[in-house]
Amino acid sequence: MSFIEVKPDSDFSIHNIPFGVISTAENPTRRVATRIGDYAVDLSALAQAGLINVPGLDAAKVFAQPSLNLYMSLGKAVWTPTRLAIQKLLSSSSALRDNAALVAQAVLPIAKVQTHLAAEIGDYTDFYASKEHATNVGIMFRGKENALMPNWTHLPVGYHGRASSVVNSGTQLHRPKGQRVVVKGEDPQYGPSLRMDCELEMAFLVGTGNALGSSIDVNKAKDHMFGVVLMNDWSARDIQAWEYVPLGPFLGKNFGTTISSWVVTMDALEPFLVQGPHQEPKPLPYLAESSPSAYDIKLEVQLKPAEGNEFSVISRSNLKYMYWSFAQQLAHHTVNGCNMRTGDLCGSGTISGPTEDSYGSLLELTWSGAKELELAGGIKRKFLQDNDEMILAGWCEKDGVRVGFGQCHGKILPAL
Amino acid sequence: MSFIEVKPDSDFSIHNIPFGVISTAENPTRRVATRIGDYAVDLSALAQAGLINVPGLDAAKVFAQPSLNLYMSLGKAVWTPTRLAIQKLLSSSSALRDNAALVAQAVLPIAKVQTHLAAEIGDYTDFYASKEHATNVGIMFRGKENALMPNWTHLPVGYHGRASSVVNSGTQLHRPKGQRVVVKGEDPQYGPSLRMDCELEMAFLVGTGNALGSSIDVNKAKDHMFGVVLMNDWSARDIQAWEYVPLGPFLGKNFGTTISSWVVTMDALEPFLVQGPHQEPKPLPYLAESSPSAYDIKLEVQLKPAEGNEFSVISRSNLKYMYWSFAQQLAHHTVNGCNMRTGDLCGSGTISGPTEDSYGSLLELTWSGAKELELAGGIKRKFLQDNDEMILAGWCEKDGVRVGFGQCHGKILPAL
Ligand SMILES: [Ca+2]
Ligand SMILES: [Ca+2]
Ligand SMILES: [Mg+2]
Ligand SMILES: [Mg+2]
Ligand code: NI
Repeated sequence: MSFIEVKPDSDFSIHNIPFGVISTAENPTRRVATRIGDYAVDLSALAQAGLINVPGLDAAKVFAQPSLNLYMSLGKAVWTPTRLAIQKLLSSSSALRDNAALVAQAVLPIAKVQTHLAAEIGDYTDFYASKEHATNVGIMFRGKENALMPNWTHLPVGYHGRASSVVNSGTQLHRPKGQRVVVKGEDPQYGPSLRMDCELEMAFLVGTGNALGSSIDVNKAKDHMFGVVLMNDWSARDIQAWEYVPLGPFLGKNFGTTISSWVVTMDALEPFLVQGPHQEPKPLPYLAESSPSAYDIKLEVQLKPAEGNEFSVISRSNLKYMYWSFAQQLAHHTVNGCNMRTGDLCGSGTISGPTEDSYGSLLELTWSGAKELELAGGIKRKFLQDNDEMILAGWCEKDGVRVGFGQCHGKILPAL
Repeated sequence: MSFIEVKPDSDFSIHNIPFGVISTAENPTRRVATRIGDYAVDLSALAQAGLINVPGLDAAKVFAQPSLNLYMSLGKAVWTPTRLAIQKLLSSSSALRDNAALVAQAVLPIAKVQTHLAAEIGDYTDFYASKEHATNVGIMFRGKENALMPNWTHLPVGYHGRASSVVNSGTQLHRPKGQRVVVKGEDPQYGPSLRMDCELEMAFLVGTGNALGSSIDVNKAKDHMFGVVLMNDWSARDIQAWEYVPLGPFLGKNFGTTISSWVVTMDALEPFLVQGPHQEPKPLPYLAESSPSAYDIKLEVQLKPAEGNEFSVISRSNLKYMYWSFAQQLAHHTVNGCNMRTGDLCGSGTISGPTEDSYGSLLELTWSGAKELELAGGIKRKFLQDNDEMILAGWCEKDGVRVGFGQCHGKILPAL
C-alpha cells in the first residue's frame, strides 16, 4: 500500500514503479519520474532531497537527465535496489508521507505533468514474432502457399526501423504521402495513403548492451533489458505493399511509431512470466531457453473514429501469444556480433491472437478491407480516416496485483 | 597551391578540404580536422588561435567537438564560407605559413594521427540505386524473370540499416556467425558465414534535416547534404539469403559497415557533377530534377588475401552509373514526412557498372561463386577468407584538379 491514493483498477499500483521523463509548467526542465496512481513522482526532486540512496547510483545526477539513458546504462545491479528503494519511499510507512513540502514538490497530479519520449533511441528494430500475425499477413500479401516463409519457424524474423520518428504517446502524426498502386496492375500514383493502419506491439528497451563482435546469451538476455512499453507501429499498407519487395518495409512505416510514456521494468513484470507457445522445430542451441520467458500481458486496441465521441475496443490480445520471446529476439539480434546500445528499442511485431477478435491490425481485423469493423454508434471502418484516434492498452493481473502500461495514444491528422 | 606539400596524385589537394575527427598521442581528445596531402590539419587549434572567423560559426567550440555533428548542423550558409576560409589559410599566400609554432601544433603528419568515426549517426539507410547491381543480384537471388521488381524503376528502393555498427576505416571486424542453409533444401545450421562479401558504396551524411511530417524538395536536397564518404557494406550472403524474405536484410549486414574517415563536402564535389543515366519511366514530379545530379567519381575495389602480400584491384566502377541520384534518394526518404537528423547516413547501394570488371561485390564478380577471382601471385578467391583485407578508393579528376576520398579499409578477422 502507498500513502498516495491508488484506485484498484490503476495500472500504476505500488507493485509497478515504472520510469519516465516529465516536465511541468513550473519547471520545464525534463527529468526522470515514476508514476503511482494518478500522480507522477519527480525522482529528481526526491534524489536532491537525499532520499534515494543506492550503491552505484548518483541519483541526483542520474534522475536530473532528460532521458532514462544514463539510468538504464547502470545495469540490473542498480535497477533492482533502486526500484525497491522507490517502492519503499512511496509506501504507507515511508517518512516521505509526513514531509508535506517535499510531497507537494515531488508528487504531481498527472494532469499537471507533460510526459516526453523516455529514451534516446540509438537503433530501433522491429520483429515479426507472432505466428498468427505472420500467417495472416502472409496469406494476404503472398497467398496461402507462401504465407509463412521457411525461415520463420527457425528464427525471429526482424528488420531495422527508423529511430528518428519514434514518438511519445499523445503525438499527432500526419497521414503519409507517397507512391502506391491505386488500380491493380497500373503504374503507382503519388498521394496520401489510402490504407492507414496500426499495429499492436510491445517493445523492450535495451539497458546494457554488448560490444561489437560479442553476443548476448539467450538465458542472460533478460538482464540486459531495462523494461517494456506499448508500441503502435503505424503502417501505410498501400505504400508498404508497393515498396517492400525485396528489401522490406520503409516509407510505409518510418513516418512515425508511437510508444507509451512509462517504461515498466522487467522486475515488475517478473511475476507474470508464463510458458510461451510450443516451438517446433526445436530452436537451435543459441535460441534455446531454460525457463519460461513469455509474459501474460493483456492487450487492447481501441479506436475513436473522427465522427464519433467514444473509443470502441476493436481487439483483445495478449503478449503471451508471441511465438519468439523477447530473450530469443535479443539473442538472435546479437548472434552475429551486432552491438546493442543503451536505449535501443526492439518491437515485438504485431501481437495477434488465435481468434478474429484478437488480431492486432486493421489489415487483419478487416481482412484487408474485405469486411468492415463496426464501432460504437454504428460507425464503420476498414482503415483509419483523418482525425481518427487510437489507444493501445496493456496490463498484467494476478492474485489481486495489477501492473500496467497506461495508454499508447495517437491521432492521424490529414496529410499536409 | 598550398604551402604544405601535396603530391600530384594526392586525393587531398587544396581543392578538397574534407572534414574528419582526429586525436593524437600527445592530445587524445577527439577534435575536428581537415586533411591536405599527407597532413591532418587540426582545425580546433587554428580556431583557438583565432584564425577561423566566419559569421555564424563559433569555431573554437564547434571544432573542439568529438564529432562533426555540431558543425554539420550549421547548414550550407556556414559550410561554404568556412571551407573557403580554411582553403585560404592553407594556401601559399597564407599568414599561417610563417607562424612556425602554430604550424607545428596544427599541421600533423598523417602517420601520427588517429582518425575516428566522423559523425554520430542517428539513423543509417541503405539504398539500392544501381540498376546493374539490382539486376545482377535479382537474377542470382530470384531468377531472371523476377530480377528487377516492378517498383525498382519507379522509386529508389531503400531499407533501414544498423547505425550502431557503422565503424571508421581501419576497424577490424570478426566474421559473423548465424543461421545459414549449407545444403540446399535442408534445415539451416549455425556457424560462421561461409560467403563473406563486400559492397562498394558511397554514402552521404545529412547536414540539415527536416521536421517530422515535412519533406525535402528534390531540387533543394543537395543543400541538406554535408558531404560524401566511401562505404563498405560488408555482407554475409548466406545469412542474408536465408533471412531476408519478407522483411529485408538484417543479420547478414548489421555486424559492421565501414566508412572512410574524411568527409568530402558537396561544395568540393560540385565541379564533378554530370548528367546521370536516362530514367525511363519518367520519375513522378516529387523525384523530377531540374539539373544534373550525378557525380563522376572513379571507384576502385582492392583485395589483399591473407596469404598474399599485396592488394589487387578487383573492380573499377564509377558513382555516375548510379540510376537514382542522392537528391532523389533524400527526397524519396522524406516524401512521407520521415524526419532526417544531422548525422544521418544514406548509402547509395552497391555501385556496379555495366561490365563484369566493374561489379561492386564479390557476389557479382564471381557470379555467386561460380567462378574465381585471380589475384596477384596466382591466389584465388570466391568469397572473403579470414584475415583478408579490403580497400575501397574513390576520386574525381578534371582539368588537372583531383579531389578524392582516401581509403576505406577493413579486415575480416576469424569468427570469435
Ligand atoms: Ca511491425
Ligand atoms: Ca548495400
Ligand atoms: Mg512505425
Ligand atoms: Mg553493413
Ligand atoms: Ni576482437
